[in-house]
Amino acid sequence: MKSYYSIGLDFGTNSVRALLLDLISGEEIVSETENYQSGELGVLLDNKNPHLARQYPGDYSVSFAKVFTRILKKARSVGIRLDDIKGIGSDGTGSSPLPVDETATPLAFRDEFKDNLNAQTWLWKDHTSAAEAAEITDLARKMRPAYLKKCGGAYSSEWFFSKIFHCLKVDPKVFKTAYSWLELSDYIPALICGNNDVRKVKRNICAAGHKAMFHPDWGGLPDTEFLHHLSPDFADLRNRLYSQAVTSDQIAGVLSREWCQKFELPKAIPVAVGALDAHLGAVGSGVGKGIFVKIIGTSTCDIMVQPDDGTELDIPGVAGIVPGSVLPGYIGIEAGQSAVGDIFNWFVSRVRNEDEKHHLVLTKQAEKLKAGESGLLALDWNNGNRNILTDPRLTGLLVGQTLHTTDYEIYRALIEATAFGARRIIEQMETHGVKIDKVINCGGIAEKNPLVMQIYADVLQRPMQVAKSAQTVALGAAIYGGFAALKGNKGFENIEAVQSRVCRVKEKVYNPREREVKTYQRLYQVYKKLHDGFGIKNTSLEMYPIMKELLEIKRSVSP
Amino acid sequence: MKSYYSIGLDFGTNSVRALLLDLISGEEIVSETENYQSGELGVLLDNKNPHLARQYPGDYSVSFAKVFTRILKKARSVGIRLDDIKGIGSDGTGSSPLPVDETATPLAFRDEFKDNLNAQTWLWKDHTSAAEAAEITDLARKMRPAYLKKCGGAYSSEWFFSKIFHCLKVDPKVFKTAYSWLELSDYIPALICGNNDVRKVKRNICAAGHKAMFHPDWGGLPDTEFLHHLSPDFADLRNRLYSQAVTSDQIAGVLSREWCQKFELPKAIPVAVGALDAHLGAVGSGVGKGIFVKIIGTSTCDIMVQPDDGTELDIPGVAGIVPGSVLPGYIGIEAGQSAVGDIFNWFVSRVRNEDEKHHLVLTKQAEKLKAGESGLLALDWNNGNRNILTDPRLTGLLVGQTLHTTDYEIYRALIEATAFGARRIIEQMETHGVKIDKVINCGGIAEKNPLVMQIYADVLQRPMQVAKSAQTVALGAAIYGGFAALKGNKGFENIEAVQSRVCRVKEKVYNPREREVKTYQRLYQVYKKLHDGFGIKNTSLEMYPIMKELLEIKRSVSP
Repeated sequence: MKSYYSIGLDFGTNSVRALLLDLISGEEIVSETENYQSGELGVLLDNKNPHLARQYPGDYSVSFAKVFTRILKKARSVGIRLDDIKGIGSDGTGSSPLPVDETATPLAFRDEFKDNLNAQTWLWKDHTSAAEAAEITDLARKMRPAYLKKCGGAYSSEWFFSKIFHCLKVDPKVFKTAYSWLELSDYIPALICGNNDVRKVKRNICAAGHKAMFHPDWGGLPDTEFLHHLSPDFADLRNRLYSQAVTSDQIAGVLSREWCQKFELPKAIPVAVGALDAHLGAVGSGVGKGIFVKIIGTSTCDIMVQPDDGTELDIPGVAGIVPGSVLPGYIGIEAGQSAVGDIFNWFVSRVRNEDEKHHLVLTKQAEKLKAGESGLLALDWNNGNRNILTDPRLTGLLVGQTLHTTDYEIYRALIEATAFGARRIIEQMETHGVKIDKVINCGGIAEKNPLVMQIYADVLQRPMQVAKSAQTVALGAAIYGGFAALKGNKGFENIEAVQSRVCRVKEKVYNPREREVKTYQRLYQVYKKLHDGFGIKNTSLEMYPIMKELLEIKRSVSP
Repeated sequence: MKSYYSIGLDFGTNSVRALLLDLISGEEIVSETENYQSGELGVLLDNKNPHLARQYPGDYSVSFAKVFTRILKKARSVGIRLDDIKGIGSDGTGSSPLPVDETATPLAFRDEFKDNLNAQTWLWKDHTSAAEAAEITDLARKMRPAYLKKCGGAYSSEWFFSKIFHCLKVDPKVFKTAYSWLELSDYIPALICGNNDVRKVKRNICAAGHKAMFHPDWGGLPDTEFLHHLSPDFADLRNRLYSQAVTSDQIAGVLSREWCQKFELPKAIPVAVGALDAHLGAVGSGVGKGIFVKIIGTSTCDIMVQPDDGTELDIPGVAGIVPGSVLPGYIGIEAGQSAVGDIFNWFVSRVRNEDEKHHLVLTKQAEKLKAGESGLLALDWNNGNRNILTDPRLTGLLVGQTLHTTDYEIYRALIEATAFGARRIIEQMETHGVKIDKVINCGGIAEKNPLVMQIYADVLQRPMQVAKSAQTVALGAAIYGGFAALKGNKGFENIEAVQSRVCRVKEKVYNPREREVKTYQRLYQVYKKLHDGFGIKNTSLEMYPIMKELLEIKRSVSP
């Protein structure tokens, strides 16, 4: 059978990755990565403000050109006809808005703004806008409580409006000069399609939903009155943003003539509407009905879908519930933990003062421990709690230390804490009617750290599968690129048809171990007590039994 | 004016130290140390049981001979007439009981027992007897609650009867062969005086009081009925222990003829009754009315005296309240923290995996922080809480970690935790009528770590003085050695007269700093909430505000 191909483009925090996918056999032909050139590993920092993280928008096209050239070269070398590359899909990490003019050109490209950090892309992990996030949350609580219901009860400093609002406050010149703001995931299709009218740039529902509080229930973006309460200038911006947001199986345009010439392409390739990286990671991992995907990296994204049968879905404390944000025809559900790998990295780099090779040393030692043997319990809140408490002003906690406690015991306790946090999220979803049949993990930690996966299986009390692809995000982008171009054709009836050929899991499945399940069940009760005691206002619990219970669990599992 | 001299002998955990003191000028002429030869740094360990810590009793005489010889050589070389050395005082670390026969000879000297760990000295830090301590505590609670009132509400696994009771259970042969048991602090005077009748060995009230539950209120040791409830064999031992315990200004005997010959001494020197090391450290630091002495080492001993005017003194949660245990005519009050230096050592060795030089690195970095700047708060319970919760089954806790938290911030939080723990003890004493005018610190940490002293001044809200002598324990022994021999003579009317000539403080006084006092006052309120919440049964407190308050304090002190 004749094959068709697509290319997925994943614009991440430090680099862009491109993947050439065989849409029929599901084979990943080749992938290429190119780091951004600016800043520190692609991120512009401000040594006066540790919360700031930006990207130079000029890096995207430079890196794209390099990586795309290499992909095509490889395609040619293995005898793939370029005509058979049917579509391009893409994602951008986010929410990462950038200010642009009417021609969809970043302000950062102008001389007067090129060194102005506020004119660059405001990267998702930029946390300068905490005060604005709180202001938006407070106002919504009073004025538009419905807005908060779809984003877990609090609007985040990592999201679209917090960042733009902060820009308005600290750099009104940039704010006023900007005709509009684009999510990185919308800028990329515009860039490669050569779209020079920002009004015509299609906005993806994946980024718009909850991160820009876009929802059909209230007619799209937050209303003018609401924004006016924040600032009249802000309300004025609303008209220069967008009123439609579409799913990623739509075509955004075709690769521009300039790029086609540069790449010596015979024919313009259709380009799909973009999406956020995590969502496409879930698509590439095989997300679907009953399949819960965990993308485990520095932080963790949990993605799930629920058939959109018209009934309202509210899960208190769960951040993003948006129709079509993951798969067309499904309500996308997005939750997550603000720090997972970041907590392990914190312990290695900040507490142990070691380089990243030390993860392996600690993991090897921690592997020898039984559940409960350390006597330790931690809360996974070093970067706040995204779900289900949605409170960025929570911090870490470790209890149970003795004079014998070792570094690797603490390391394991931190892994366990993230597993307990993961379980709290799954429980919340199940309690609110989401049925979870299977958990598939992807991301660096899922692939590289069997100890983490085993602990997750034991704590979550279900098998942990791991996506076979090492680049599920780019794979998800390629799936959407191919599907948007070919949908309706045989084998492209729906996106699940493509996923069924492409998405695989590794042979190794981590199964829960009876003894460890039992111990973690006890420990989880203690975790919940700490979680509720420290995380929920107006809650008074007796903490005295906690240390005794940890000692008792330790005793019960010790040889 | 003609000078008189005395020698203080301090039998510690790893070595014996001897000090030659000029009783008139107060000058410390010379001091000498000799490490014990057996085990690991003088401590016999069992690699199958990390709680075990013993000493070989034969080490004492070997080390004593060496160190005493060197002291006398020095005395001769500076022209001191050996006739003018008027007394010897001594202490032993404790409670460290050893099984002996009727001739006061350790069972460990017999061939059949020489390799038996249970026939050796059971060092204070031996924690094999936790179950027996609990059994004694439980029985006393039911049967003799008064016993517990003088030892802070719980009998410790570190103390006399717990250890002997454990020996009875695990090694009945040693127990039955032992005619009696001596505290190390009573064995030393017996050893150097050549006392070969254990019934005639004077027992010091310092070790007997609370550590052996000895108190005049109930006629000395715990009564036969009580001990019988623990075990009939145990009750039988009572008659072979002691019915009198005396203060350390009493003479135990004179240096034996054998030792005098060995040392070529013209005349036998009087030897005072022994005492526990911490108490003599307080005496050497100048403890007296209104003067609170903190001996800060791996753990901390707080020693205070109160004039014994016949009124009962009860301080809930304070371990040792014993008439005459520190100074004759005063009620001695002993409290303490189960781990202080040990917590810092734990962090450096177990968490940071560094050697002890790393304390300096962390201290230098921690010094640059302001109070509250780290956003962290810790509980100082890695080794349980001796006072005022008297609960060995409490563990450490750290709260407030973010992804930016550094090792030196944690190190400082641990120092602060011990300061808060110290404050809780002082508050308890003051609440119960003990007036504290001055705090004098001694011990390795007080001398070597200005950061610890400064934080203590800021947290305790009063100046911290440091004893001038680097060996206050041996100094206290020498004071008692001289006073016991010369009391009644001019200049030796009471022990305070000797102390006034001998005990000095360093010029450098650590004064509380207004700004830090204010911040620590806020942090201490948070500490108390954690302390009460995790440390007191049936107490439900709202923990939610803790993380917010720590963030708020951090914000308020940040530049």
